[in-house]
Amino acid sequence: MTDIPLGGGGEFDRIRAIAAALGSRARELGNDTALVRLGDATVALSADVSVEGVHFRREWLSLEEIGWRASAGALSDLAASGADPIGVLAALTIPAGEPVSTFVALMQGVGAAVDAVGGKVLGGDLSRGDAIALALTVIGTAPIPVRRSGATPGDAVWVTGELGGARAALTAFIAGRTPDPAARLRFARPQPRIAWGRWLAAHGAKAMLDVSDGLAGDAGHLAAASGLAIRIDLGLVPCHPAVAAEARLADEPAGVFAAKGGEDYELLVVMPPAFSGAAGFPLTRIGEARVGAGLSLELAARPIVLAGYEHFA
Amino acid sequence: MTDIPLGGGGEFDRIRAIAAALGSRARELGNDTALVRLGDATVALSADVSVEGVHFRREWLSLEEIGWRASAGALSDLAASGADPIGVLAALTIPAGEPVSTFVALMQGVGAAVDAVGGKVLGGDLSRGDAIALALTVIGTAPIPVRRSGATPGDAVWVTGELGGARAALTAFIAGRTPDPAARLRFARPQPRIAWGRWLAAHGAKAMLDVSDGLAGDAGHLAAASGLAIRIDLGLVPCHPAVAAEARLADEPAGVFAAKGGEDYELLVVMPPAFSGAAGFPLTRIGEARVGAGLSLELAARPIVLAGYEHFA
Repeated sequence: MTDIPLGGGGEFDRIRAIAAALGSRARELGNDTALVRLGDATVALSADVSVEGVHFRREWLSLEEIGWRASAGALSDLAASGADPIGVLAALTIPAGEPVSTFVALMQGVGAAVDAVGGKVLGGDLSRGDAIALALTVIGTAPIPVRRSGATPGDAVWVTGELGGARAALTAFIAGRTPDPAARLRFARPQPRIAWGRWLAAHGAKAMLDVSDGLAGDAGHLAAASGLAIRIDLGLVPCHPAVAAEARLADEPAGVFAAKGGEDYELLVVMPPAFSGAAGFPLTRIGEARVGAGLSLELAARPIVLAGYEHFA
Repeated sequence: MTDIPLGGGGEFDRIRAIAAALGSRARELGNDTALVRLGDATVALSADVSVEGVHFRREWLSLEEIGWRASAGALSDLAASGADPIGVLAALTIPAGEPVSTFVALMQGVGAAVDAVGGKVLGGDLSRGDAIALALTVIGTAPIPVRRSGATPGDAVWVTGELGGARAALTAFIAGRTPDPAARLRFARPQPRIAWGRWLAAHGAKAMLDVSDGLAGDAGHLAAASGLAIRIDLGLVPCHPAVAAEARLADEPAGVFAAKGGEDYELLVVMPPAFSGAAGFPLTRIGEARVGAGLSLELAARPIVLAGYEHFA
């Protein structure tokens, strides 16, 4: 536990420091999802916290969307381990004086997201606090659990769906513009890729995680966890339709804009070299695993350096 | 789900409103602990949130104690369902600018409490926020799960250990006095009664919960969940040694002072009438279940009315 293979960033320095201090009292802290054997089953567990002013602003989202988004973010970790959700526990803090309807609306969003993937709200806790914060813990079962580690040189790196939609909404919000409706929906109501994650696990996924901190950061974790190098061609990254306009405004190539976006909650998955990509859902080959270490990004055969999203920046 | 049998209090009004809004998307929200069947096992899950300024103050406790106390409070819910802990997931928010050592110290406390009962830190999440907040989700297995409901008229009501120690420390802290060292320890490092809860579950416990909101509030939940009346004689309540002096200062009978205290994390358990109380750990008979509804407290044969601790008061 004292040498957790994570990529760069302040949050990961903190996780490493915590793991070193806890020693044998902790396990698998380098993964978003804990996998625990229980009889014949593998239980997958993940916790995710969303804080007002850090992860969302109330003027951008309805309370139900805030609840959905927090719940979907946690469920996305289950998707990335190939797990099927059982349910969610929600620990909410809310400023004093907020009406009961605030709790109800947040929890309706939490409940709708977990209901959409066949799970239940199992429990939770309520407290007052200075801001709205939702700490969500999800539990599921993983028939064929997939971790961040397990890739081998020669494997191919794929990504589901389209990236950059959430960032396209976010850059519009920050600039005071009205986001493209489809991009806003990606930001406000991300879809945890549960069925896709299970399909990929059943079809030979060797390593997987969800793109929550941006492709650069998350692919870096994948490379570190598997102890190899990953090369990604940003020209191959599938971009959300709203990316083109926002990328132009940001003066960035579309693939770079999309790769810098966090919270798309698509799956980044390493498949064996022979995998054809025929999956019945959108899946795009964007790179490969090689002997070596670290992540290299390129665009039109030129190297690109990007940072992942950093909550503590 | 639309008519959850809970006792009184604003937090419980909120839980009822949430449950009514969620309908079939939620289950068992009236319990502190969710019990989920998984193959041959019953998984017990509970979430608990501790917020600076609401549940603790940094001038009263070390960071490690804050972590321990939050972890122990969540583990106590497992104890009350007769469960054996597997581990904990910790979602922490910390003000920007706090050093890495703040996270580490909090997590060392979380880890020590879960290690003391044979569990592990399984994972978590870190974020910045305006105050320190710890949202802890515990998971365990319950070979013989016990709920809040299940008592029948004629059963006896017992409590483990001693009550009032945490409140004795708290009243001293609030008054600016130095708490009795043993009382401070009860407040700062409560012991989740895991082994006792498992023993009680294996020896016929019909209903159980932990005393986290005060005897009055918690016994009221027990009565409501089982659909009967509970009578408790406050003269029989086992009091922590530090209660006598603080109760005198508060001008309250010791049994009343102890019954008003929250966060002792002892177990309140309903046992069949024939149970002798021979358990190998401190267990005191303080009342009984009867036909009817609601909680009645008495002292020297006179009725007493007390409110439970109310986080949103």
